Amino acid sequence: MILQTRPSGRAVDQLRTVRLTRQYTKHAEGSVLIECGDTKVICTASIEEKVPGFLKGKGQGWLTAEYGMLPRSTHSRMDREAAKGKQSGRTQEIQRLIGRSLRAAFDLEAFGERTLHLDCDVIQADGGTRTASITGAMVAAYDAFTKLVEKGAIPAVPVKHFVAAISVGVFQGTPVLDLDYPEDSACDTDMNVIMTDAGHFVEVQGTAEGAAFDRATMNRLLDLADAGIADLIRLQKRELGLAG
Amino acid sequence: MILQTRPSGRAVDQLRTVRLTRQYTKHAEGSVLIECGDTKVICTASIEEKVPGFLKGKGQGWLTAEYGMLPRSTHSRMDREAAKGKQSGRTQEIQRLIGRSLRAAFDLEAFGERTLHLDCDVIQADGGTRTASITGAMVAAYDAFTKLVEKGAIPAVPVKHFVAAISVGVFQGTPVLDLDYPEDSACDTDMNVIMTDAGHFVEVQGTAEGAAFDRATMNRLLDLADAGIADLIRLQKRELGLAG
Amino acid sequence: MILQTRPSGRAVDQLRTVRLTRQYTKHAEGSVLIECGDTKVICTASIEEKVPGFLKGKGQGWLTAEYGMLPRSTHSRMDREAAKGKQSGRTQEIQRLIGRSLRAAFDLEAFGERTLHLDCDVIQADGGTRTASITGAMVAAYDAFTKLVEKGAIPAVPVKHFVAAISVGVFQGTPVLDLDYPEDSACDTDMNVIMTDAGHFVEVQGTAEGAAFDRATMNRLLDLADAGIADLIRLQKRELGLAG
Amino acid sequence: MILQTRPSGRAVDQLRTVRLTRQYTKHAEGSVLIECGDTKVICTASIEEKVPGFLKGKGQGWLTAEYGMLPRSTHSRMDREAAKGKQSGRTQEIQRLIGRSLRAAFDLEAFGERTLHLDCDVIQADGGTRTASITGAMVAAYDAFTKLVEKGAIPAVPVKHFVAAISVGVFQGTPVLDLDYPEDSACDTDMNVIMTDAGHFVEVQGTAEGAAFDRATMNRLLDLADAGIADLIRLQKRELGLAG
Amino acid sequence: MILQTRPSGRAVDQLRTVRLTRQYTKHAEGSVLIECGDTKVICTASIEEKVPGFLKGKGQGWLTAEYGMLPRSTHSRMDREAAKGKQSGRTQEIQRLIGRSLRAAFDLEAFGERTLHLDCDVIQADGGTRTASITGAMVAAYDAFTKLVEKGAIPAVPVKHFVAAISVGVFQGTPVLDLDYPEDSACDTDMNVIMTDAGHFVEVQGTAEGAAFDRATMNRLLDLADAGIADLIRLQKRELGLAG
Amino acid sequence: MILQTRPSGRAVDQLRTVRLTRQYTKHAEGSVLIECGDTKVICTASIEEKVPGFLKGKGQGWLTAEYGMLPRSTHSRMDREAAKGKQSGRTQEIQRLIGRSLRAAFDLEAFGERTLHLDCDVIQADGGTRTASITGAMVAAYDAFTKLVEKGAIPAVPVKHFVAAISVGVFQGTPVLDLDYPEDSACDTDMNVIMTDAGHFVEVQGTAEGAAFDRATMNRLLDLADAGIADLIRLQKRELGLAG
Repeated sequence: MILQTRPSGRAVDQLRTVRLTRQYTKHAEGSVLIECGDTKVICTASIEEKVPGFLKGKGQGWLTAEYGMLPRSTHSRMDREAAKGKQSGRTQEIQRLIGRSLRAAFDLEAFGERTLHLDCDVIQADGGTRTASITGAMVAAYDAFTKLVEKGAIPAVPVKHFVAAISVGVFQGTPVLDLDYPEDSACDTDMNVIMTDAGHFVEVQGTAEGAAFDRATMNRLLDLADAGIADLIRLQKRELGLAG
Repeated sequence: MILQTRPSGRAVDQLRTVRLTRQYTKHAEGSVLIECGDTKVICTASIEEKVPGFLKGKGQGWLTAEYGMLPRSTHSRMDREAAKGKQSGRTQEIQRLIGRSLRAAFDLEAFGERTLHLDCDVIQADGGTRTASITGAMVAAYDAFTKLVEKGAIPAVPVKHFVAAISVGVFQGTPVLDLDYPEDSACDTDMNVIMTDAGHFVEVQGTAEGAAFDRATMNRLLDLADAGIADLIRLQKRELGLAG
Repeated sequence: MILQTRPSGRAVDQLRTVRLTRQYTKHAEGSVLIECGDTKVICTASIEEKVPGFLKGKGQGWLTAEYGMLPRSTHSRMDREAAKGKQSGRTQEIQRLIGRSLRAAFDLEAFGERTLHLDCDVIQADGGTRTASITGAMVAAYDAFTKLVEKGAIPAVPVKHFVAAISVGVFQGTPVLDLDYPEDSACDTDMNVIMTDAGHFVEVQGTAEGAAFDRATMNRLLDLADAGIADLIRLQKRELGLAG
Repeated sequence: MILQTRPSGRAVDQLRTVRLTRQYTKHAEGSVLIECGDTKVICTASIEEKVPGFLKGKGQGWLTAEYGMLPRSTHSRMDREAAKGKQSGRTQEIQRLIGRSLRAAFDLEAFGERTLHLDCDVIQADGGTRTASITGAMVAAYDAFTKLVEKGAIPAVPVKHFVAAISVGVFQGTPVLDLDYPEDSACDTDMNVIMTDAGHFVEVQGTAEGAAFDRATMNRLLDLADAGIADLIRLQKRELGLAG
Repeated sequence: MILQTRPSGRAVDQLRTVRLTRQYTKHAEGSVLIECGDTKVICTASIEEKVPGFLKGKGQGWLTAEYGMLPRSTHSRMDREAAKGKQSGRTQEIQRLIGRSLRAAFDLEAFGERTLHLDCDVIQADGGTRTASITGAMVAAYDAFTKLVEKGAIPAVPVKHFVAAISVGVFQGTPVLDLDYPEDSACDTDMNVIMTDAGHFVEVQGTAEGAAFDRATMNRLLDLADAGIADLIRLQKRELGLAG
Repeated sequence: MILQTRPSGRAVDQLRTVRLTRQYTKHAEGSVLIECGDTKVICTASIEEKVPGFLKGKGQGWLTAEYGMLPRSTHSRMDREAAKGKQSGRTQEIQRLIGRSLRAAFDLEAFGERTLHLDCDVIQADGGTRTASITGAMVAAYDAFTKLVEKGAIPAVPVKHFVAAISVGVFQGTPVLDLDYPEDSACDTDMNVIMTDAGHFVEVQGTAEGAAFDRATMNRLLDLADAGIADLIRLQKRELGLAG
């Protein structure tokens, strides 16, 4: 089915083209450029050989995430958060979401007293930066843990589930998958869904920007997300050379 | 149905006792103490006769919310955010949620160039402080707008929908309504749902704290929330002397 | 003697009605709601099992205080200090005063390496919030130390003196006791006095808001404070079930 | 009467040697170095041709003060407040005191929409820096207003009263005038008194550092302050070439 | 001449391979990726249709620069400045340098009341990030001004000089051109030179990290820089399609 | 040669009168007032018996510098950095320069695990405050190390070189030595040079404020600086009673 008015001409259940480039920068243990249409995010994973104070001596690891946007990644230039001296509420909300989602993917007790830092930096924004960050960070984290395996520091990549994320929403009355910026800025409802490769939910965050939405719409949005995330996880595994 | 192990002895679909006390403090245009079991939040609504810069001259109003906890509203004392010099990511996330939810309840174009400030301050916490804040703030805002009507400043309370909020979650494998602190701190899934009196969704925020959850569980949680919110909105209207 | 123009109709040497409610909230070791007329402050006392760095290993305790106002505790809404990212000079001045006054009441060397945190949060303001905070915090601290005695951690409540505080001032040319907001905002001189149950001074802070005041006025103000504080300390002890 | 143990050998009612150097730096409209024994403070007064927002268009002036200490003005080096990114509570308390005291000295309605900024910067500290700041700032402000008179901007220096400040305290059981650092750091009671040339009080701030003090001691301390301040104001006027 | 020990095997007067990619991101008026060996910086130029307050109404423009590094652009992860709440002294020093250098390149009076914001964000660091930022920002700024010309807003690109920048230093006793990270972290002297296409100096910043350096070394370093910058400016012009 | 238009009437190669006053304040281990014409800076050196975390246990010392200006050290009053809550980029740049320059003067490995804190506070500014700070701090640091020698803590003052600093610039087309404020605010080129007593460079920071400058001008400026610094170092040594 094709929604005539979808600005990109995509079908309602069609993802943008997604590309994952591993080893995108050279210093990080894991470094992935994820491109979802015109949205581009650099996701790096850095291993630190210690844990925050509240975990010291407990023999387990920690995983945390930070998110940022280059000032001119957006249509008009945003103030630089480092110059303003604080991160916006939106930034903090997003980096907390990325952290929770990725902590659901890995077994924190299986990689020793180490911290995995995920940094998701948006180079170019066209809608869906937080979901692209999660999908890309999954691969960067996997690569970083693989480095630890190769060094003999841990026996196996401590993955519990693969996770990926996508947005769905109601655009001009129709539920659609993977909102780009023209859709995102005009939609009635915007929902971010994070799911595992078992098709279970890690996070669901839906907001009625305009009219409140009913239960049938909710169900249709979750159907769209379910199919889109399955595709994304297949892509993640293929890029990592893993059997799907 | 009664879950044998629910710490409070409540049925799985049973709300805590909710009390709304209007005119709780004397200076604010609207002032409500909401008590949901042992969770107690003071919600005040203040009218300011101007709007933020981005709305100046557009002839419409604005509504914004702030949230705080007294340092010893919790089991162990938290650092005071004013003393630390910044609000936590959690605080910002909550106050953004309260603001979005209440902006869905009122018609911003129908009360002139005024700002309604909602302040939700937790006096005692026992789980569900953000949902109690939204449910209480709805009544405080209604009272504040009523003052504007009584002064002749606007013709009617600019309400579009009533909104209320509740948490649902999976506690020891069973979906339950209205988590208290012992449940909240041990649950697998925690979901905050905000709905209108038409039974439509304003926000859904679900997080798998432990295991990811499946679609059937999602559906059961939304059923519980739907019934609980209907009860809360009946209570709001009764307290305000409105026909349900 | 009755000053005809005192807005409340009180005699010049008459306190507002004072009420102390112990165990006001459930988590804190000591928790007191103090109401002085329309001024309402929640005072909690929290015991922490450690001391600041500068006292580590010295075998003695520490006592510190923080003060805050809910944004709409006042006639017009104040900005939230946590949102502004800093405490005002007034707030810091008040919490330093509360801390010094209560450190004079207790023997810091008699409760081990523990910190007593006092939090005084103004729910509703009508003048005299800092003196109400001190008078209420005295009772909250006493209750918290009693908990330590009951647990066997210390042999007795380490009280040196009871302390209480009151404001006095010159309103329309006449020295009066216990200024409420209409008096406070229009007075010539405002003095806060903190005294012990032995009638000795812990702090005296007098400011000529309008005309400077002479020595005779100073003496009359101290007389008024002396009598008012004696009443307050009797009330504190009665509420605690102690012989006056 | 001589207190045998006063570290400096001064009589109990004896001030340290005070020196006022006008035109100490060349850019400020008023610039005074005040030396009280080894305490040295640079007090500058700067005229700005505008007022803060809350006074705009009211036709009156404003006077405000700031206070700072060079990091190594003290026995051991203090952290620089500019580097820490905030002023301590003590600093804010002191600069609020200086501002209130000097606002009592001048008629804010008589110098137009101008702001007088007083900056009191401690070059070397040996006790009594806040009282020295007030005494010195009085002269710097007078000089700055004189500049305005000379320029024809105002008809006369808008002085209401001269003010000066001194500390008194109880050292080893004896009330003494003008505490230096060895006394200040060991005293039982410390009181800062600000008075006018009419002998009236502008501010009294007394703190029992050790034992609470009784009414007779209070009276003796005020007597000492009264005499000391009269001497300081004579000195201020003499330096300014005014009849005492 | 080839220095045997230069880690990269380059000749002492040999630049790393430099690549300039224009239109690197899609939203900015000018957007250039500059790669100098493994150092990669995104330079964007954004036009804002207003000037800072101090220039309002003067009919001239402004140009300003900001600089940042992605947390894992470096060998070990750096803290994110936005999360720390402040920019380091190094960051501020660099962005001030970039701004001054580019203000020397363009005629601020020839592009109306507009601000050109340059953002230089380091994606991958291997030495020389500040000089790469300047060289890349020159091209991004040129492209942004060209957009203004194409829109008819200004008659011509207001370029005064082309500027480019390079580092030179003393590595193992020998002056070399264009230090990479292994050289930069071990060199005795590090000098950043910014010059125009006329061969004149805009900035020279030389620091003896180890031993102080003599006049002959200074001269040799300036010779190397002079030749390197001439090459860089030729490259800038060629990429822009301008006659050298 | 005399430049007719030099505002002060000085010859192009003539320093302002320089005075160094040692033991200027009494608490610091080293304390120097440096006066270069009307520029006056208090430089104190404080010894702390520990090192920053990154040096702990390495057996070596550290030296660091901070810089500040009194708010009315300048022609018009500047905002106080402590009140604004942050140091400007200019301040940070200057204190980093002072620190690097003085670390070149002393052998950090020869004074044990101690930190030397240099504080340079400008009392009155008339151009050249950063270079005066360096020249004065050299003497203050020497004095502080001498104290350590006298206490037997180290065998000798760990000086490697004497360093001093001066500005040079192009004023009305002519290279001149030691810019004062009228020259500094109108010059085309401003260069700060820091050199050792061996005539070697520690830092060179030259900026073309107006027109870019050529190599011949660069050479003339370095000649002027070389002679001026030699004079300053002679003065430093004479004041310290050392053979030149």
